[in-house]
Amino acid sequence: MKEQFITLIHNLQDRICAELEHVDGEAQFQQDKWTREGGGGGITRVIANGRVFEKGGVNTSVVHGELPELIRERFGVEHGFFLAAGISLVIHPISPLVPTVHANYRYFELYEQQGGEAVDAWFGGGADLTPYYLDENDARHFHEQHKKACDAVDTALYTSFKSQCDAYFHNAHRGESRGIGGIFYDYMRPADAETGLTNSQLLELAQRNGQAFIDAYIPIAIKNASLTYTEEQRYWQEIRRGRYVEFNLIHDRGTLFGLRTNGRVESILMSLPPRVRWDYDLQPARGSAEDALIEVLKSPRNWL
Amino acid sequence: MKEQFITLIHNLQDRICAELEHVDGEAQFQQDKWTREGGGGGITRVIANGRVFEKGGVNTSVVHGELPELIRERFGVEHGFFLAAGISLVIHPISPLVPTVHANYRYFELYEQQGGEAVDAWFGGGADLTPYYLDENDARHFHEQHKKACDAVDTALYTSFKSQCDAYFHNAHRGESRGIGGIFYDYMRPADAETGLTNSQLLELAQRNGQAFIDAYIPIAIKNASLTYTEEQRYWQEIRRGRYVEFNLIHDRGTLFGLRTNGRVESILMSLPPRVRWDYDLQPARGSAEDALIEVLKSPRNWL
Repeated sequence: MKEQFITLIHNLQDRICAELEHVDGEAQFQQDKWTREGGGGGITRVIANGRVFEKGGVNTSVVHGELPELIRERFGVEHGFFLAAGISLVIHPISPLVPTVHANYRYFELYEQQGGEAVDAWFGGGADLTPYYLDENDARHFHEQHKKACDAVDTALYTSFKSQCDAYFHNAHRGESRGIGGIFYDYMRPADAETGLTNSQLLELAQRNGQAFIDAYIPIAIKNASLTYTEEQRYWQEIRRGRYVEFNLIHDRGTLFGLRTNGRVESILMSLPPRVRWDYDLQPARGSAEDALIEVLKSPRNWL
Repeated sequence: MKEQFITLIHNLQDRICAELEHVDGEAQFQQDKWTREGGGGGITRVIANGRVFEKGGVNTSVVHGELPELIRERFGVEHGFFLAAGISLVIHPISPLVPTVHANYRYFELYEQQGGEAVDAWFGGGADLTPYYLDENDARHFHEQHKKACDAVDTALYTSFKSQCDAYFHNAHRGESRGIGGIFYDYMRPADAETGLTNSQLLELAQRNGQAFIDAYIPIAIKNASLTYTEEQRYWQEIRRGRYVEFNLIHDRGTLFGLRTNGRVESILMSLPPRVRWDYDLQPARGSAEDALIEVLKSPRNWL
């Protein structure tokens, strides 16, 4: 399974980067390969200052070794070894009319002995969209593509993953969602009594949703990148990007876990937007497009 | 004691705001009074888009009521009541040659019964300077003024407070200090065996250091605000402001505690800089002024 998952994320990284470069038409991804002291490493690919994309990263990593103390504590084990493989991407477009997007698919194995059989293994992943101005058709399209991918594996999944996404990407201190949601799942173990999905179904889930990311986001990016926008809309985007930073640094388990286990800081914080503003107590005018966005972030909708 | 401390922070708030307005010469503080559902409230004063200051806040709050769950857990008590009074300020100047500054002085009382005698009480506080370009004279001046204030109470304090400041304002995930330090102290209890300071000495400590903030920062702001700077220096400031955000949202106990106990979000996050940038893996050229700053942040110095 781990070999198949690693092949999957590297293929996905290549295809997603190619699609995004095609949409941008100017900028190209720059690649950094890095190795981890305790074992493994990653491939960080960053695009910056393009025609459509201001900053984005599409990263893969395959790390292994002794379990960091933080994980040992969480799972209540005295010692152990792990392998974690994943793809993680965040794209921040220039135009406030093109949504920011995030996706991540990961696989984890736990061992008692180095080189031994896995004693536990699980999958996690998800994708979510963060518009600065709400386009309901875009929101529906993004959810539809991911529902189709989930349904192909099991029709019970999307509804659960959609609510997990709303629950996870929540800026609790603001009482707001980060964006208009998508899907999120974690600790999906093969043959788990609750879901009954096999190893190969869980692999297929990552594969189909990885492809769904392309089908979901690329058309939205192309359509909205051609729209003209104002300086005021750009200002609002920079303010809202501040909320993205707040979520990632205060609430996101992946970011905090990475930083606390001496992950590669520049690859982890690649998710942060390029230009951001914090004004004191900025409130959009009632009935404005900005206010309409806030409303849907305060009360997440079912898009399908 | 609580009455004296509350008078102290309100006087300090007035004096500091007046001094900063005088330096700015254009912008004035706008005031928001707020009340807390569980008891008490605060006075938030914000300055924005001035001649010298891009964004700053000088806030006081006096809150009381039932102990929030988070504090009960930390102190291992089943129930109880508290009073917390404090002044907190963060100033972000426009010019990258004028350092950002932070100061905070606070007093805490714990009760078993509402309206009863305090069963525990302590003081905390500190001030620290975050330059974007290192001026060693400024660093020395900032530390000297605070050392003088501490020495007037007890000559053993500054050395301890200086190292506590370096330890606290540390962006562990970056291996860097937030700035060039200052002083920091917490849980200073009257008649504590270790320090032997009385209640009135601890009050005097807050009072003298509150005044020292003015003597330390105002001359630095006036001198550096008259210097011309480049767009490249401003770019560097926005990058470094990103580190300020990272510290406040990932590591700062006060910020995280406030957000987790439903504090007033806009008053807490007033500390975040107005315009911020995150570039992927930006490294200053060796031997540059930017590099010299990083060096001192990686190895904090004794300035006196």
